[in-house]
Amino acid sequence: AMRHKSFKANLCPVARSLDTIGEWWSLLIVRDALTGIRRFSDFQKSLGLAKNVLSTRLKKLVACGIMKQVPASDGSVYREYVLTKKGRDLLPVIVALRQWGENYLFSRREKRLQIVDKRTLKPPRRLDVQNVKGDALAPNDLELVTLTTRLPV
Amino acid sequence: AMRHKSFKANLCPVARSLDTIGEWWSLLIVRDALTGIRRFSDFQKSLGLAKNVLSTRLKKLVACGIMKQVPASDGSVYREYVLTKKGRDLLPVIVALRQWGENYLFSRREKRLQIVDKRTLKPPRRLDVQNVKGDALAPNDLELVTLTTRLPV
Repeated sequence: AMRHKSFKANLCPVARSLDTIGEWWSLLIVRDALTGIRRFSDFQKSLGLAKNVLSTRLKKLVACGIMKQVPASDGSVYREYVLTKKGRDLLPVIVALRQWGENYLFSRREKRLQIVDKRTLKPPRRLDVQNVKGDALAPNDLELVTLTTRLPV
Repeated sequence: AMRHKSFKANLCPVARSLDTIGEWWSLLIVRDALTGIRRFSDFQKSLGLAKNVLSTRLKKLVACGIMKQVPASDGSVYREYVLTKKGRDLLPVIVALRQWGENYLFSRREKRLQIVDKRTLKPPRRLDVQNVKGDALAPNDLELVTLTTRLPV
């Protein structure tokens, strides 16, 4: 695949986000970390990645401030990888991808993984783009503006 | 970049979604289409892509059922590219990426693009993962289960 130009200076937050986490494996590592995976060997098992590749990806996620290394929870010499707040805040991205995939990429009765609320065992609400009043917004309801300072939210 | 193995048969909806739309450029094309871009030349201008590369990406998006070709709105011989429902339903993915990028990849007063509700000129609500009652769910509140048939929502 072609190496893309960097969008670090791009005005669009979507482009900058993809520049940071748009690599395929990065998002799957974040997905695994969100479900509680912390150890190198467990990421490797889940993703089926070569050690050197996984190591590079984890280093990149640490360098971006999305993950950090912490001492192993069992007191062993190995270090574990956990998400920072910046990383945990990718939950809506992962859930949005998940819900779209559930809808369009699985047949009705096909076996699949589902995230559920631990307490109720029900899946989260469908993520829906809404205005400040809570009305659903479709693509046609939206427009792009260039901000020089932040809008009040 | 390494070519990843296909996740078409993966049980995880996140992996299948990334298999379909995880290519960097695909999501930026969807982003542009969501803001109303329809013409080949306008996608090209927005993305700064070579014609052959853009053409390949658009064909892939059409093959996946995310975009479709329609006659040009001005009656010319050129065809335009518009999102299908499957494509428009990627709006929460794009908005989630956008909001994360706004939060973490721009400094406080840095110039940036913002999507706003056309009527109110205010940005959409922050996408938040919630349970069926509307309570916010953090990664720790969630667990993965394997479904063989769909849960009632």
